[in-house]
Amino acid sequence: MKKNKLWQTSKEDTHPLVEVFTVWDDYLFDQVLLPYDIKASKAHAHMLVKIGILTQQEGKSAINGLDDILQQWENNTFIIQKNQEDCHTAIEQYLTENYGDIGKKIHTWRSRNDQAMVMMRLFMKQKLQETEKLLVKLINAFEKKVLKIGNIPMPWYTHMQKAMPTSVWVWLDSFAASMRDMLPFLKTTIHLIDQNPLGSASGFGIQNFELDRTYTTKQLGFHHVQENPMYCGLSRGYFENIVLQTLSQMMVISGRFSSDMLQFTTQEFNFFSLPDKYTTGSSIMPQKRNYDLFEIMRANVKVYQAYQSEIQNITSSIGSGYQRDLQLTKKPCIQGINLCMITIEVLIDIINELHIHNDQLEKSMTQDLFATHEVYELVKKGNSFRDAYGEVKRGVYLW
Amino acid sequence: MKKNKLWQTSKEDTHPLVEVFTVWDDYLFDQVLLPYDIKASKAHAHMLVKIGILTQQEGKSAINGLDDILQQWENNTFIIQKNQEDCHTAIEQYLTENYGDIGKKIHTWRSRNDQAMVMMRLFMKQKLQETEKLLVKLINAFEKKVLKIGNIPMPWYTHMQKAMPTSVWVWLDSFAASMRDMLPFLKTTIHLIDQNPLGSASGFGIQNFELDRTYTTKQLGFHHVQENPMYCGLSRGYFENIVLQTLSQMMVISGRFSSDMLQFTTQEFNFFSLPDKYTTGSSIMPQKRNYDLFEIMRANVKVYQAYQSEIQNITSSIGSGYQRDLQLTKKPCIQGINLCMITIEVLIDIINELHIHNDQLEKSMTQDLFATHEVYELVKKGNSFRDAYGEVKRGVYLW
Amino acid sequence: MKKNKLWQTSKEDTHPLVEVFTVWDDYLFDQVLLPYDIKASKAHAHMLVKIGILTQQEGKSAINGLDDILQQWENNTFIIQKNQEDCHTAIEQYLTENYGDIGKKIHTWRSRNDQAMVMMRLFMKQKLQETEKLLVKLINAFEKKVLKIGNIPMPWYTHMQKAMPTSVWVWLDSFAASMRDMLPFLKTTIHLIDQNPLGSASGFGIQNFELDRTYTTKQLGFHHVQENPMYCGLSRGYFENIVLQTLSQMMVISGRFSSDMLQFTTQEFNFFSLPDKYTTGSSIMPQKRNYDLFEIMRANVKVYQAYQSEIQNITSSIGSGYQRDLQLTKKPCIQGINLCMITIEVLIDIINELHIHNDQLEKSMTQDLFATHEVYELVKKGNSFRDAYGEVKRGVYLW
Amino acid sequence: MKKNKLWQTSKEDTHPLVEVFTVWDDYLFDQVLLPYDIKASKAHAHMLVKIGILTQQEGKSAINGLDDILQQWENNTFIIQKNQEDCHTAIEQYLTENYGDIGKKIHTWRSRNDQAMVMMRLFMKQKLQETEKLLVKLINAFEKKVLKIGNIPMPWYTHMQKAMPTSVWVWLDSFAASMRDMLPFLKTTIHLIDQNPLGSASGFGIQNFELDRTYTTKQLGFHHVQENPMYCGLSRGYFENIVLQTLSQMMVISGRFSSDMLQFTTQEFNFFSLPDKYTTGSSIMPQKRNYDLFEIMRANVKVYQAYQSEIQNITSSIGSGYQRDLQLTKKPCIQGINLCMITIEVLIDIINELHIHNDQLEKSMTQDLFATHEVYELVKKGNSFRDAYGEVKRGVYLW
Repeated sequence: MKKNKLWQTSKEDTHPLVEVFTVWDDYLFDQVLLPYDIKASKAHAHMLVKIGILTQQEGKSAINGLDDILQQWENNTFIIQKNQEDCHTAIEQYLTENYGDIGKKIHTWRSRNDQAMVMMRLFMKQKLQETEKLLVKLINAFEKKVLKIGNIPMPWYTHMQKAMPTSVWVWLDSFAASMRDMLPFLKTTIHLIDQNPLGSASGFGIQNFELDRTYTTKQLGFHHVQENPMYCGLSRGYFENIVLQTLSQMMVISGRFSSDMLQFTTQEFNFFSLPDKYTTGSSIMPQKRNYDLFEIMRANVKVYQAYQSEIQNITSSIGSGYQRDLQLTKKPCIQGINLCMITIEVLIDIINELHIHNDQLEKSMTQDLFATHEVYELVKKGNSFRDAYGEVKRGVYLW
Repeated sequence: MKKNKLWQTSKEDTHPLVEVFTVWDDYLFDQVLLPYDIKASKAHAHMLVKIGILTQQEGKSAINGLDDILQQWENNTFIIQKNQEDCHTAIEQYLTENYGDIGKKIHTWRSRNDQAMVMMRLFMKQKLQETEKLLVKLINAFEKKVLKIGNIPMPWYTHMQKAMPTSVWVWLDSFAASMRDMLPFLKTTIHLIDQNPLGSASGFGIQNFELDRTYTTKQLGFHHVQENPMYCGLSRGYFENIVLQTLSQMMVISGRFSSDMLQFTTQEFNFFSLPDKYTTGSSIMPQKRNYDLFEIMRANVKVYQAYQSEIQNITSSIGSGYQRDLQLTKKPCIQGINLCMITIEVLIDIINELHIHNDQLEKSMTQDLFATHEVYELVKKGNSFRDAYGEVKRGVYLW
Repeated sequence: MKKNKLWQTSKEDTHPLVEVFTVWDDYLFDQVLLPYDIKASKAHAHMLVKIGILTQQEGKSAINGLDDILQQWENNTFIIQKNQEDCHTAIEQYLTENYGDIGKKIHTWRSRNDQAMVMMRLFMKQKLQETEKLLVKLINAFEKKVLKIGNIPMPWYTHMQKAMPTSVWVWLDSFAASMRDMLPFLKTTIHLIDQNPLGSASGFGIQNFELDRTYTTKQLGFHHVQENPMYCGLSRGYFENIVLQTLSQMMVISGRFSSDMLQFTTQEFNFFSLPDKYTTGSSIMPQKRNYDLFEIMRANVKVYQAYQSEIQNITSSIGSGYQRDLQLTKKPCIQGINLCMITIEVLIDIINELHIHNDQLEKSMTQDLFATHEVYELVKKGNSFRDAYGEVKRGVYLW
Repeated sequence: MKKNKLWQTSKEDTHPLVEVFTVWDDYLFDQVLLPYDIKASKAHAHMLVKIGILTQQEGKSAINGLDDILQQWENNTFIIQKNQEDCHTAIEQYLTENYGDIGKKIHTWRSRNDQAMVMMRLFMKQKLQETEKLLVKLINAFEKKVLKIGNIPMPWYTHMQKAMPTSVWVWLDSFAASMRDMLPFLKTTIHLIDQNPLGSASGFGIQNFELDRTYTTKQLGFHHVQENPMYCGLSRGYFENIVLQTLSQMMVISGRFSSDMLQFTTQEFNFFSLPDKYTTGSSIMPQKRNYDLFEIMRANVKVYQAYQSEIQNITSSIGSGYQRDLQLTKKPCIQGINLCMITIEVLIDIINELHIHNDQLEKSMTQDLFATHEVYELVKKGNSFRDAYGEVKRGVYLW
């Protein structure tokens, strides 16, 4: 049997075109995920010792080997090869070549299926926890800004036409409010994925043999065991989908904020600006100061949505039980999470640095914004609302 | 001023093409939503009495008028006309024509904006609560079925090829498990939308005048006031988006279940069937029994996803502040909720009626499903996993 | 056998929930498509006479019956019932009840499958031909406008910041140019769908019997017979997908045009306006003039895209051979075509009516727009481009 | 001014977070596109010589420098750095550092905008032409296979249930037929993009100076000049969108083919197989032979659709004139084209290698497939179709 597949079906090599087609760029994303596999593999090794599959000595050797790989990974010297397909194979091969028999034993009572799942789950959990912290930081940035600037009147728009007066305070706080309401969703999602799929093997569990799933659950810091092994399988792609949906709330809000900013930083509106080092220029027009970062932020919402529907689409079109389609949920999930996190980081920075043009805002508080106030005054004097509205309107339009 | 717009901008009529284009089929969906506007309008009228804008008499008249409309709506005789655009206009016009001045006063201290928002919010809240009940019923149906059938072995598949043994029990329970995990999301979403936007008017609140927003909040059974009026505006479309995302979890699962069922009801697999009255036939082939309902269920996941991305797409591409784009989130939201609810209802029925072909399942428990068990036996005898795997493989393939 | 299904599989009625779930709102769209089925059914009847399946007398009776239905349809008195599922059933039942045996014979040598397909194909062909005419009319509207207004300078923007001078002429013509390039796609798509699927029955053709497919092809005005019956089946949904993709080009352009218009009609830019009857107002703010029609146009691009991906998604997730999923491609196809056509109609009207604010445009031609011209002048004097750019930049920024 | 931006707006460096956020992974895709920029830059240099901006000597130097870069690129030694942002900057900097003043002059009369556009256009044109050749090769593969296998009967399915007899020939040819109909779309799209945007600069052309756009058009092998410079700008993203839509036809078909294959290669159907080297195994179950390549093919349709809607979504949500959002259309366009091309290559190989299980197909030609033939026989004997259908049905179901 050839060295580099855990599953070779043929004495011949896999057809090279099939290898290229089925692996594609997946191994590059496993390069990111490797430390999470190492973490889970160590817990698995400890458990195999505990239930007597590995000797103490073998367990130690496994841990050493896994730590060795992690060390190399941190130095950027452990590189997964395309023909290895994934980090699971790369790890097993490395152990077998360098740590002897333990490499052949580490896969006992598990499948690449639960191995990939637990790795991904650990990755998502950590990222969601980091995102939660970032989000709190962003909410604080909004709150601090609002305190700092005090009450600055601002014209507001509906249908992009001047409508009524509001304030910079209310505008900024509306975004903060939406983010405060996002936090419970983050918590709910973190709780959902905080269950351990390791031990579900290929989706059928390990029958006729007792694993200690509680042990690995504790070791890995999960809240509880995900009991039904077919539910473990069913949650692949499905949990990724929920993670991206949860974070999408942030992206939708960033889309609206960036659209506001692009409008309010035009020379025609000119309500806000950022320091020069936040802007970009043109290769041909020397006078330009562009807010590319808001354009990228706006477009990223669509990029993100593509990732989101990619995962949902792949996951919902197939029956239950593992199918290779699900491998393709990894890439958009990682890309989506990264996109969301950098977006929040950028927002934190921007809110701090946002320069408010009080004079221009003041100049924009034109009379038409107060037409509804006139209606209100008439209502207070006893007119019906609709009659008062009509009267003011006739005044405006000289009907 | 012409009778039929609350906002006429011209002495001429609105251009008919503009009317067709901007209203399109939106008024048909308002026909569904009308009772929720009535409910909110009654709370608003009570509040206007409380704060002294309406007299007791006017308040009574408003309530009578609104109840009158509701009654007609229940009899299918209150029909919103296309040139009325929406239920808000239809209601105000009816009141003005039939209940005198109160019609001109009911709009005091509100805008169509918060009026539409509170109506939609009440609708979504009720539907989510009903969905929660349906979901619990479905989980119960799974649990009851599982108890009833006992332990029936079943071959299982990965990559659509025979993999290992499992049981009908584990398979059915995997769906139930995913639904149990859905419940906290429903609760989180219900809590999110359980805040009262009424009083935010066009997104600027009612300045220089004290509404009693706490009063309408209590009247309408909301959990709390949504304070920031611009956040109220920001949440239009955005909350609809979150509602559809939450329910999409159910749709994804229904997609996988229906794919399973379509495979397992083929004549070639033949593991399950449904009574004839659940199947359809062909207009030309007399022998056919088709499981159209699973095909529709599978395709509805894609229909639903279109609704979902429609809302997210519309909502995230614009700045904050009301823009007419948001009107178009109403239709996919209503359609999506309806689709999800009927799907659960159908599933409840199907699970109850599912006929399990024990004999066929038994016949399908072929030897190849147990190859991994052989590996396990060799491991128990002291072989390394990878060597044991290789040995069994060589046996299978006669290498 | 019960009266109202062509395919009843059970002595009992179909389960009502299954009926609701599988038919849903599909019958409402068949109400739109009915005349196209009538047209195709008449051609089929003529062909059955020609090949001797129907007598001349029976043929005449069929034609009379079908014309009778069409007449009623035009008077809005032929209404398809939900429990009839579709227009095919409604037609066959009506004929059987009112024109005797011919109703039982009209389905000879066809299936609801090719019947639905030919109906849809005729509908799409007609709509695409109408769209082509509308598009030419729109291109003419642009050209006429451009001639009329002459050369009006206009500042232009990249990244929403002032960039360089252009003219209203060039801007408007850029849209016309994109539409001129759209025409070959319309023609290619019309040619694609201009093939006759009638006679493919359920996707297997009519074996052991000679239909005259060339005859119905001529009768229906199709370019050629779609020979392979399984390709006929495969093209269901697939052709609808291509039709919506083709028209999407128009929608993308309308999205960009409406975004431009929303920006340029703000009070801050104020480059263009439309007559009052094209604008809408507010129910609460008496001063408002809103360009809702551009907001609806912008949002419709996303609505359209949802239809488009709905069809593609449904169609691409299943194997070949008819599956009920494909029924659900009808609704988004009809809705998408309608949306595209009204959009073009609105655009034609708007271009004609567009009021250009020459004075405001002139005022906006500020000095910064000419910075690149300064660079050019330095280049003409012999400086390298990059040095000239640097020099002007230092001047602008006083570095 | 710092060395590494063509457009620096500040004496300080660009904020590092802004750089990371706006560049992201775009420079990696420019690494792929670089040769197309070189090609276009050479044509531009020749043109600058022709119109007297560069001397013959400078022109030669530019060509040498560009060829030098290309050579290095081919050896994988010319690597674009993230802080260079794109290949345009990397090229200009390299020329300036190594070929003196010509580096500062090569950007004369162009912008990164038309530079990026012409590069992308050349890339897309070449890929479409290659795809056309691949598609013809695939059609030939189908035709050859069909000739080779002759007439093998095959049961066919509607609604996944046995329906009527067909043949492997008709099934395979249905895919070939759909591809033949795809060719005119490829040609229409190639013609669309075969127009030269170079010379449109930032979307405003080069005013007050005569470029020779016809010259570069000939040099680059384009069919004609894209005249209106704002249409050039408008076509960015928009043409990419049309390219992906065109190729999506292939992807939709591959989705249906792979779904068929996954069903027909199950052990339960067992109609077809591929040689072992096309299959994959399991890391845990030694007996497995999986058709991962069809699962990847099926899932790739959804991945592709995500790319497609990403581009359409980004492009249609903004006004005309260059906005940075459009940069993000590059990645999904390149990824989508690559995915489509590898899919066709894999299909060509598979069709050749497809092993047909005649015996199993024969065994599957069960009696129920012929029920409709019985109806036909009764019709030939003079029964009405619907009565004949009823009679056969009563026989089947023993009603």
